[in-house]
Amino acid sequence: MSRVGFIGAGRIGQTIIYSCVKDAFADEIFVYDLSKDAVDNFREELKHAQATKGSKVNIVVVKDVSEIKNCDVIVISAGKPRKPGQSRRDLFADNASIIKGFAAVLPSNNQKAKFVMVANPVDMLASVFMKFSNRYTISSGTQVETMRMRSFIADKLGIPVSLIDGYAGGEHGEAAEIFWDSVTVDGVQFDSAASGKLTRQDVENYMKGIAAQIIAATGGTTWGPATIIADIIKSIVLCSNRVMTVAVPVKVNDETIHVGIPTVIGNHIGPALESTLSENDRKKLDDAKQRVYTAYKEMLDSLSK
Amino acid sequence: MSRVGFIGAGRIGQTIIYSCVKDAFADEIFVYDLSKDAVDNFREELKHAQATKGSKVNIVVVKDVSEIKNCDVIVISAGKPRKPGQSRRDLFADNASIIKGFAAVLPSNNQKAKFVMVANPVDMLASVFMKFSNRYTISSGTQVETMRMRSFIADKLGIPVSLIDGYAGGEHGEAAEIFWDSVTVDGVQFDSAASGKLTRQDVENYMKGIAAQIIAATGGTTWGPATIIADIIKSIVLCSNRVMTVAVPVKVNDETIHVGIPTVIGNHIGPALESTLSENDRKKLDDAKQRVYTAYKEMLDSLSK
Amino acid sequence: MSRVGFIGAGRIGQTIIYSCVKDAFADEIFVYDLSKDAVDNFREELKHAQATKGSKVNIVVVKDVSEIKNCDVIVISAGKPRKPGQSRRDLFADNASIIKGFAAVLPSNNQKAKFVMVANPVDMLASVFMKFSNRYTISSGTQVETMRMRSFIADKLGIPVSLIDGYAGGEHGEAAEIFWDSVTVDGVQFDSAASGKLTRQDVENYMKGIAAQIIAATGGTTWGPATIIADIIKSIVLCSNRVMTVAVPVKVNDETIHVGIPTVIGNHIGPALESTLSENDRKKLDDAKQRVYTAYKEMLDSLSK
Amino acid sequence: MSRVGFIGAGRIGQTIIYSCVKDAFADEIFVYDLSKDAVDNFREELKHAQATKGSKVNIVVVKDVSEIKNCDVIVISAGKPRKPGQSRRDLFADNASIIKGFAAVLPSNNQKAKFVMVANPVDMLASVFMKFSNRYTISSGTQVETMRMRSFIADKLGIPVSLIDGYAGGEHGEAAEIFWDSVTVDGVQFDSAASGKLTRQDVENYMKGIAAQIIAATGGTTWGPATIIADIIKSIVLCSNRVMTVAVPVKVNDETIHVGIPTVIGNHIGPALESTLSENDRKKLDDAKQRVYTAYKEMLDSLSK
Repeated sequence: MSRVGFIGAGRIGQTIIYSCVKDAFADEIFVYDLSKDAVDNFREELKHAQATKGSKVNIVVVKDVSEIKNCDVIVISAGKPRKPGQSRRDLFADNASIIKGFAAVLPSNNQKAKFVMVANPVDMLASVFMKFSNRYTISSGTQVETMRMRSFIADKLGIPVSLIDGYAGGEHGEAAEIFWDSVTVDGVQFDSAASGKLTRQDVENYMKGIAAQIIAATGGTTWGPATIIADIIKSIVLCSNRVMTVAVPVKVNDETIHVGIPTVIGNHIGPALESTLSENDRKKLDDAKQRVYTAYKEMLDSLSK
Repeated sequence: MSRVGFIGAGRIGQTIIYSCVKDAFADEIFVYDLSKDAVDNFREELKHAQATKGSKVNIVVVKDVSEIKNCDVIVISAGKPRKPGQSRRDLFADNASIIKGFAAVLPSNNQKAKFVMVANPVDMLASVFMKFSNRYTISSGTQVETMRMRSFIADKLGIPVSLIDGYAGGEHGEAAEIFWDSVTVDGVQFDSAASGKLTRQDVENYMKGIAAQIIAATGGTTWGPATIIADIIKSIVLCSNRVMTVAVPVKVNDETIHVGIPTVIGNHIGPALESTLSENDRKKLDDAKQRVYTAYKEMLDSLSK
Repeated sequence: MSRVGFIGAGRIGQTIIYSCVKDAFADEIFVYDLSKDAVDNFREELKHAQATKGSKVNIVVVKDVSEIKNCDVIVISAGKPRKPGQSRRDLFADNASIIKGFAAVLPSNNQKAKFVMVANPVDMLASVFMKFSNRYTISSGTQVETMRMRSFIADKLGIPVSLIDGYAGGEHGEAAEIFWDSVTVDGVQFDSAASGKLTRQDVENYMKGIAAQIIAATGGTTWGPATIIADIIKSIVLCSNRVMTVAVPVKVNDETIHVGIPTVIGNHIGPALESTLSENDRKKLDDAKQRVYTAYKEMLDSLSK
Repeated sequence: MSRVGFIGAGRIGQTIIYSCVKDAFADEIFVYDLSKDAVDNFREELKHAQATKGSKVNIVVVKDVSEIKNCDVIVISAGKPRKPGQSRRDLFADNASIIKGFAAVLPSNNQKAKFVMVANPVDMLASVFMKFSNRYTISSGTQVETMRMRSFIADKLGIPVSLIDGYAGGEHGEAAEIFWDSVTVDGVQFDSAASGKLTRQDVENYMKGIAAQIIAATGGTTWGPATIIADIIKSIVLCSNRVMTVAVPVKVNDETIHVGIPTVIGNHIGPALESTLSENDRKKLDDAKQRVYTAYKEMLDSLSK
């Protein structure tokens, strides 16, 4: 019996849940959302979808997060959404106190659960959840950027995305870094393969700018991140051991922060594959850790005031 | 090479398209929507989703419906959405002229295509499209009601939905009819199986009322109909020969109308299984045909004024 | 909780079971086979396969058919296999007494189960099982022929098989009949579509001869029938309502026989779509019924001696 | 357009191919086998299976390996099968010369292909193929042992296999090693989790002995390895980046040998995660490398005589 708990069923939360129910890799899911009426009706919609599939994931809507029990994975997308023009970091103050509330309640009822933070700013909120729950927590991190980077290269070179390999890491969002020494195009290093067609700068511009562009045009990103996050959950639940650039906890000085690192995702999460990165790419990652640490400490300070 | 064209990428259109791309049963899809910017960004989202899946349905955004060519299936969800409180029939005048425009353009470029109407009111708009295109057209009809009926019975009896069989037909929406003699619960007729737990009236109330309830709570139905409609498309494209209560063309007096009838859905659509219904259920279907005919004629009259 | 029982895990039985476990649409399966040692090791193999998938169909090997309980579907492939050159009918005497033994034991422990006969001669053995168990029984019938017919037309015309629709029916094996009026090629009647490229005779020769050819070359048919039969089971378990030409029970004079008819396959099996066939095709089906009746009566007579 | 070539369509080769065609992740496959008649009939069977699925992987049977062109992956299962009681190493002399023949022909027509050795002894034959082709080659290595190890622990502890994580590596077969420090049971180290129920020795005995047991009972392993190997191919073709203990090339002294190491499997194969193993586990791997090197050198010597 595998169970996944979902805290938050807003725009992106619903799409993640839909993707999970459609793939039917869990036996039971719990769904909590502030909008009781909306989530009850969402459940009806999911059940109509299940009828045509003949599938039977048991969907339990709970009125309180304390009713979420014995989950293998808990996915937190609750929190205020990112508004057009707003930075991910600006969301921090809004959402950290909500997350602290969950951290006080969820762990005791879910002794085996891994926690996956999806609410923005994902990495810092993962750190907040971990700090106040003492439980292993990851965020979706830069897995979304990794897939956007691959997608763009494939699209521009006119080849299937399955021929593009490699990772982006560090901070989720505009400050994400591509680990260029890991990027290959049908087995050939990016610079050789893309020479004359596409520059590193083109790819970075796209990867860093596409979220804002989608938000401006449609009000928010959904289908991309939701599918990618559902695959993170799936890799945990089925123990597929896919390598994904989720943000994992890293100790910097006195604090545990989260940064995106290629990491093996199974029933056990890890190892993070930092040691397999090139020196150049590791340097980028180290810089990101410092930036995240500094920013996070400031945020924590402002939070405690 | 299988191709599916989508006219309309609004809330429900996007969800259908997402479901089709995720299942990857077509090789290429065309997407047209009035909101060029939104649909371009939707394509980016779909491509990010494909990256994590490694899938490669080719997604072509077109600026004009005339660029949609050589499709096997064309799905029309374009049209103004149903507003809270608005009847499906009230939408007719708004949407029929849009549909007539598509009927003038699509057939010549898509000689083999089957047309699936999803814009509301689905059945009448299917008839309008067929009338002005001279091409075989179905609508999603009462397949959504069939699945909602099965879903509700399963949920209330606490059993998997795959144990519920049977069909709803006639008009899509509040006037849909359950073909009760076809409804079984793990092989037992509904009345015996549900005795003391659930009445026919309970089921009808739910089936007829749930869409309005969802619309009131969330602004529109999406996940349920979209998944069900994606399965209709899938059954055509893969020639699965599933029996689904789509609305098929029926000649009444001088006019071709559309009503929901259990129908074999493969590369060839049909036969409609009217003759296998019980006499009672056939009577309900005949009444529905008359009602639809009368309403449709009035609509057509008002349209030509 | 959906359960499928498998009596027989020989060459074709194993392939059906593998296909079902891989698709993971049932929660639990029971497997019985005379070769205890082989079936125990087969279970180990299946569990290794499940490890890479992360799937968890519970696989129970039973030492006696009486341990198979509360199944939704029971699939009987046990019986002696067809030898090269041997007719399906010649197998009857060998296998009928085995089947009678199962009919005495299985029904009482499996009140809701549908029975699917796969052991040859499939249609007569389905009739034998039904006669002695008083339980609704089908056989895989001519669904295998339907798919072989479609496959051959697609292959010869160089188009995807999903563009071919239509059915074969009557007796399984060399006497199967194609219901030609149902056969279409991308929506066009076979004779027009194939004109100059392929004749009805070509298709019939292939459909009737390919099994013997495969048996001669490889010792037995497996992958084709097993996948097709797994899809029959799947359509029951998920209530997909696919139309498949399984052999269903038909009363002829004093006896219930089985012949292949396009039939809706869901949690409820039926209706059989005899009334939707053309007059020509119905005539072929009627002739098949008579032939089967006569042959079956002779077989039964010889059995009772 | 993704293409997979299969050299060998014997018992295990057929099962791998079937699994790949059923999952339909490649667009085209090439199949070569010495038994022309059998492989032609196998293609017919696969096409019958595709008809019920509506899928359309293009299946090309070739009469000569030189006709296999432009593949992304080439899977070599040709070679004499392992007989009951025969060690994998004893197969070497029989199969190395066959493999050398393929190495002379395949590379020039398949510039982008990764080569996956499945014929036994898998690791040495991978080294032979790589030596004589100068092309990157892996073997299925100890991924089969990894899955058998996980399967057994799950079965004995009565929990889903998706809760077991960790790897086996080194040599394929009786000398395979479990990397115990990587093995977890729902997040807990094996020794704590299994204490009093299961010992390391139990697991090792099973993992090392189960293949021989299956071979003795049924004539050969098929379903397990075939599904596991199909997932290796799938992870390459879809660029899923699963970590799998395939055998990868490692330089020892003057020779490139193959040993099972957890490795990221995508369009790019690697990195091998040797550096993330514990010191204990790395020691076992180093010992395995030495043993394989010594054995391989002897084999090569005997080959050249």
